[in-house]
Amino acid sequence: MHEIAVNEDILAGNDAAARHNREHFIEHGVYVVNLMSAPGAGKTTLLERTLERMAGKHRVGVIEGDVATSADAERIRRLGVPAIQINTGGECHLDARQIHRELAAIQLEELDLLVIENVGNLVCPAEFDLGEHDKVMVLSTTEGDDKPRKYPVMFHVARALLLNKMDLLPHVDFDVAKAEREARALNLDLEIFRVSGRTGAGMDAWVTWLEERMRRVKAAAT
Amino acid sequence: MHEIAVNEDILAGNDAAARHNREHFIEHGVYVVNLMSAPGAGKTTLLERTLERMAGKHRVGVIEGDVATSADAERIRRLGVPAIQINTGGECHLDARQIHRELAAIQLEELDLLVIENVGNLVCPAEFDLGEHDKVMVLSTTEGDDKPRKYPVMFHVARALLLNKMDLLPHVDFDVAKAEREARALNLDLEIFRVSGRTGAGMDAWVTWLEERMRRVKAAAT
Repeated sequence: MHEIAVNEDILAGNDAAARHNREHFIEHGVYVVNLMSAPGAGKTTLLERTLERMAGKHRVGVIEGDVATSADAERIRRLGVPAIQINTGGECHLDARQIHRELAAIQLEELDLLVIENVGNLVCPAEFDLGEHDKVMVLSTTEGDDKPRKYPVMFHVARALLLNKMDLLPHVDFDVAKAEREARALNLDLEIFRVSGRTGAGMDAWVTWLEERMRRVKAAAT
Repeated sequence: MHEIAVNEDILAGNDAAARHNREHFIEHGVYVVNLMSAPGAGKTTLLERTLERMAGKHRVGVIEGDVATSADAERIRRLGVPAIQINTGGECHLDARQIHRELAAIQLEELDLLVIENVGNLVCPAEFDLGEHDKVMVLSTTEGDDKPRKYPVMFHVARALLLNKMDLLPHVDFDVAKAEREARALNLDLEIFRVSGRTGAGMDAWVTWLEERMRRVKAAAT
């Protein structure tokens, strides 16, 4: 019984930390996105294209989650955007306590948007609330159109889907209509953006959507 | 370590059953709502008013969850709507396996809408996925406008909020604007309906919203 209690503490600990994080984000009017995908789907490249479009307009911060290396945080910093790197050292996802520990180093009142780029994984990150407003996932056309059926939880919890590498569509077997229909069956409200991090196609609609979410967060801030 | 594994099995078991349930619901094009609130907020009365408005237009089934008694299922059956009663025998919420066991007795292909009325509780039900499309919560004006802050998880996961007992507003201290603003701070997409189960006020907008959700489910059905 003792060990069951320990395990429940771990799970309850994540939820309690997520609640704390969410309170901080609401209090400071910062819109927070938890960005998730399989490895190599293009999260960091899409984030770079997003940050370029926001430069001078919105104050953005980034937390990068990876098993190892600080390569992604360095890419973000090159754009003049503050980035913190968390290395999970083996864990397949970020958890809310890791985020909570970093919040002391972030001036939330100086941010409009905080993007948390999760560890590349289509399973574990979906199950850990970080306190974000929205989970956003990336699926690339090179991964196959069967992913909504194979990873239903991720598609169910995401608020938006960036369907990336649309420029490669002529070269791969990927049925966009099928993937989108099956994703929407799992998630009646899923916003889908067809984008390419390489060409920049579709990025304006995505950035406009983010800006509308930021406006809602500011409007609800007390 | 053995006991930790057992506990993880319980949690993983709920999620696996929820996934199965969701697959069944999608396959049959049935829109499924998980209706939650504190005890006495008016879930069953609002459900009666909803079913009356749907009579002859939509095929509806109900699963009632209660710690004890089959009083709520009997109320629903009096309207000519099929209702199954689950008694949790002490548990403060329904879980996905209980729902899964009942699905054998329900002809899903004969339903457009399945409403699962959860045990009256503002905490536990929020954390157990039943495989539903939408969690919908009821808050009544007699419960106080501090509830979004005190029960943030429930407000965060709900897709819609029925703000009930609006007819009692002149007699209670309840700041509607404050409650709605604090609920929306936790949930940027929360649909809010101001209703009264007693007078029927606001019920048409709510039913119209349900009908739009049913249309989306049918459109996504494969």
